Formats: sequence, C-alpha cells, structure tokens
Amino acid sequence: MKRWVRTGAALVLGAGLGVWVGRATSLSPGEEQRGVGGLLERLPVIPVIPGVEASELTVRPGVLGGAAVMKYGFPSLANIKTRESYVTSYDPRTRTASWVIERLSPASLSGQSDRKSCDFMEDDSVNLLHRSTNADYRGSGFDRGHMAAAANHKWSQKAMQDTFYLSNVAPQNPQLNRNTWNNLEKHCRSLTKNYLNVYVCTGPLYLPRQEADGKLYVRYQVLGHNHVAVPTHFFKVLILEQMDGRGVELRSYVLPNEPIEEKVPLERFLVPIETIERAAGLQFVPNIMKRTSRLQSITAR
Amino acid sequence: MKRWVRTGAALVLGAGLGVWVGRATSLSPGEEQRGVGGLLERLPVIPVIPGVEASELTVRPGVLGGAAVMKYGFPSLANIKTRESYVTSYDPRTRTASWVIERLSPASLSGQSDRKSCDFMEDDSVNLLHRSTNADYRGSGFDRGHMAAAANHKWSQKAMQDTFYLSNVAPQNPQLNRNTWNNLEKHCRSLTKNYLNVYVCTGPLYLPRQEADGKLYVRYQVLGHNHVAVPTHFFKVLILEQMDGRGVELRSYVLPNEPIEEKVPLERFLVPIETIERAAGLQFVPNIMKRTSRLQSITAR
Repeated sequence: MKRWVRTGAALVLGAGLGVWVGRATSLSPGEEQRGVGGLLERLPVIPVIPGVEASELTVRPGVLGGAAVMKYGFPSLANIKTRESYVTSYDPRTRTASWVIERLSPASLSGQSDRKSCDFMEDDSVNLLHRSTNADYRGSGFDRGHMAAAANHKWSQKAMQDTFYLSNVAPQNPQLNRNTWNNLEKHCRSLTKNYLNVYVCTGPLYLPRQEADGKLYVRYQVLGHNHVAVPTHFFKVLILEQMDGRGVELRSYVLPNEPIEEKVPLERFLVPIETIERAAGLQFVPNIMKRTSRLQSITAR
Repeated sequence: MKRWVRTGAALVLGAGLGVWVGRATSLSPGEEQRGVGGLLERLPVIPVIPGVEASELTVRPGVLGGAAVMKYGFPSLANIKTRESYVTSYDPRTRTASWVIERLSPASLSGQSDRKSCDFMEDDSVNLLHRSTNADYRGSGFDRGHMAAAANHKWSQKAMQDTFYLSNVAPQNPQLNRNTWNNLEKHCRSLTKNYLNVYVCTGPLYLPRQEADGKLYVRYQVLGHNHVAVPTHFFKVLILEQMDGRGVELRSYVLPNEPIEEKVPLERFLVPIETIERAAGLQFVPNIMKRTSRLQSITAR
C-alpha cells in the first residue's frame, strides 16, 4: 500500500495542519519546522513557583485518581468523567472524547493486567442519543483506537479495563494504530525512565484543508447508526516532569489519521502546542503555567 | 438564483438531515414527515407538576437574566455565558455558539432600542485562540447571522447590543438570513401573542450527507484567519408556555444553511426534537420534563 503512505514532513505540512500552523504563527513552513513559532519558546525559564512541593511530584501507584492526574489543569470543562486510569471530556456531538489525560510512571506500567481479558464496552454514563457502540465500528474499516492506551495501565485490571470504554476510543486507521501510533505510545512509556512523571493528553482533531475552489473545508466521515466521527488527525500532548522536580517539558504531536510509513521518525510530528490549542478549542499552557513557570517546549528541532 | 433554491421537503429529506431522521427513528421518510416518530409524541399529556407556581411564569421585562431564561434547563454545560438578553454555550472549536437561549414576551419586544446604533463586536470573554472576528467574515460571502435575534430585544439597548457579540453569531447564507430565517424569527415573535412566554433556543448543526462512495461525511467550510465554522444547518427549538400556565408546547425546526424559496411554509421545517438532540449533542427533553409533565410536541403535521 505504498501509494497511501506519505512522509512525515508531507503529512504535517500537507494535510490541513499546515494551514493551521502557517496561519497561527505567520511563519513560513521552513521556519515552522525549526520550531521557532511556539508560544512556549518565548516563555522565560525561571525556577518553579513556590507552593509546588516535591511530595506532590512523587509517584503513588494505585491512587492515580482525578486529583493527581489533573495536576496541570483541565483543557476544557465539559462532560468530565473520572476513571481509574484517566480523566476525560466527552464530546456528545462527535461521540468521542475531546481529550483524555493519564499519568504514566514506572509503577503504572508494571503489573499483571492482561488486555486479553478486556472487551470494548459502551459507556453507559453517556446518554443513548450521544453514545457510540461496538456496532458503529463493525465493518467500518477503522480500528477502535485507544486515547489512553491500555498498556499504560498494567498496574490494575480495572484501570486497564477502563481504557476499553468506547468513550476512550475513536475511529483510527488500522495501519496507523498498529504502527506509528503504537510507536508513539511506546515512546511515552519509555519516557518514564527519564522523567519523574509523564502526563499524556490525547485527543482527536478535525482539521481543514483547501479544496479545489480554493476555500478551506473540514471534512470527516461518520460511522454507523450513531454517526461516530472519524478524526482527521490525533494529538498527544506530553507534560514531562523533570527528575529534580523543578521544571516541566512539553512535547506536542499531531499525527494524521492515515497510514504513515513506519520509518518516519516521531520527531517529524512535533508541533507547537498553540497549534493544537487553536485547532482543538482547548487550553493547556495557562493551566501548566499556574503550576510551574520553569517550562520548556520541545517542538520540531 | 433559482437553481440554488430547493423546496422545503427536499431540503429536510435531502441535505443530510434525512439521514439523521431515518436512522434515529427507523421510520420511512413518509412516516417521518407526518411527524409520528418524535419521542415527545409518545409522552403522556398530564397536568403540570406541582411546584411550578403561576408567579414563576409571569413576564418580568428588564429582569430577563440567566435564572429566568434558563427555566427549562441547560442543553449542555460547557462554556456558559450569561448576557442581558440571552444565555449561551460557546464552542471554542467551531468559534460559534453551541446554543443560545432567550425568552420572548410582548414586553421584551417593545421599546425604543435601535439596531442602527449596534455594531458586531468580538467577544473578549473568549480566548484569542478561539475567538471569531469581523475580519473572518469580511468578503466571505456569508452574513453574520444572529442566533438570538436583535429585534427580539427592543426592551433595552444593552440587551440588543449584546446580541451583536460574534459569539451570538454564525456564518449564514445571506438569502436564508434575509428571507426564510427572518420569517422564522418573526414567527417566534408573533407567538408571544398566544403564549405566556416563548423560550427560543437556536444553534448550528453539522449534518452528514452521503457522498459518491456511499459513505456519510460531515463537510463544512471554515472562514478567515480563525477558521470560523459554517454550519450546514441551523435549529430553533421553541418552548411555548400556554396562557393558562399549565402546559408547554414544543416546536423544533431545522433549516439548511442555503437559500430557501420564501413561499415554502415554515411548517415544512418542523422536525422531531430528538433529531436535534441527537445531531447537536444536546438534551432538551429531560430538562423540560423536570419543569412540566404536560408537554405537547408539535412536529410536521
């Protein structure tokens, strides 16, 4: 299926996102790729604010409840659901999450939980009018793609099972899900070796692209009886707490919901966080700034 | 522009909505048009619940604040803003309202306020990343279509001015805005003669339609630097309090965001409220049921 596979640079700059990036920052694509356009790049690097104690930063496996995982705030405040392994905001119009936040650490990654005993399940906390079902996905050609990844929560069978709620799932291209997206999830887990805590926020994007008439259009498929929206792209925002507990690094990725050649390095999908905030209608930076002013943004380098 | 004008029946059944209606109720289009599929049609008509006093139902011009206008509840709870003339929920991703609720009465319709002294203005309560501007609309070919109509709020210059916030506005086809949509707004006002209070909830819809590959897609244009979404359709839900203060009638309309021949009667655009609830990701009926169980739904007849 070579003809369906694009390179990372083409994906980021071609499939709608380039429009956002360019417009958001008024920079040329070349400048953008060097990552000089992000809001955070202009932020001063000063010591962590008083009031955040080191004790708050330690890992407490088994108590990964809402309070801990939301340390850096809510990207939006609608339809919040707190689960064993994550906190999420549900979008009743698209029938998927707006975002899902989880906290990874060596402790959350280790355990005996087995995804073989997990089944995808309807989220019965969502009104029937706005709920996605397994039937919506059946025969669609799309995977039920996890937002909070199952393998991030081996510490508890319940925590892992919670990632199988369809409200933590969005229609995802199977090749993406099983290759590059999977690699990005593994990368998030590997970062727990080098950081005190790894907060991961994942969600869908619906990005416009220019059509033949020169105008910009958002266009996405909907699946099944309940019209579950197929995102055009997915984002992951990583909030990385440094080992000394003093500062925070941000990495934000956007991947198109289509096959990606696996050899394309993940770094190619780094974008300024403002791009995601603007496109998704969310806010990360103001929340993060409340908890630490020693903040470093890592976009494409 | 005759070639752009469709009849009401074709609009309702053709432009995406038919898909929703048919799937929501499993009825044939013919049955749907006779309006037998709405949830409310199956509700018993019994007296108003105790606890709603007649005094609550009287009109108090000048105090049309959030509490009064939200008597029948919030269709959703995200990003609520309370204004002199309406309450709204803002969608930071589409840069338009999700819904706007206002309360009309003879008192709210009378006064000396003049729209000539009103200008469309940015809503500076919305983050710059998610805000629409007048520049986004300029040269787009779309009107700045009011959700809460200016002429509904002659009772106070401030109330009228508040309807000119761009968060109460969405891109609207000019011919629709100036003809059939305007007629629907006038119709809402005329109902104040026959009902104690007229609650109007207005908002955008993004409905899917079948494309050549047989699959369903949502597709909508976005305008300007801030990518303001152009809705495919608009809804108005009318909650009509009967003069005796004992019961409530519901009428819900969906109009496509395109030119409509003016002679098409408004009744052609009546739809079951469940259609709107499902498509918009909102809930009206449970809220309304909390305030009255004497409820009658008026769909296409």
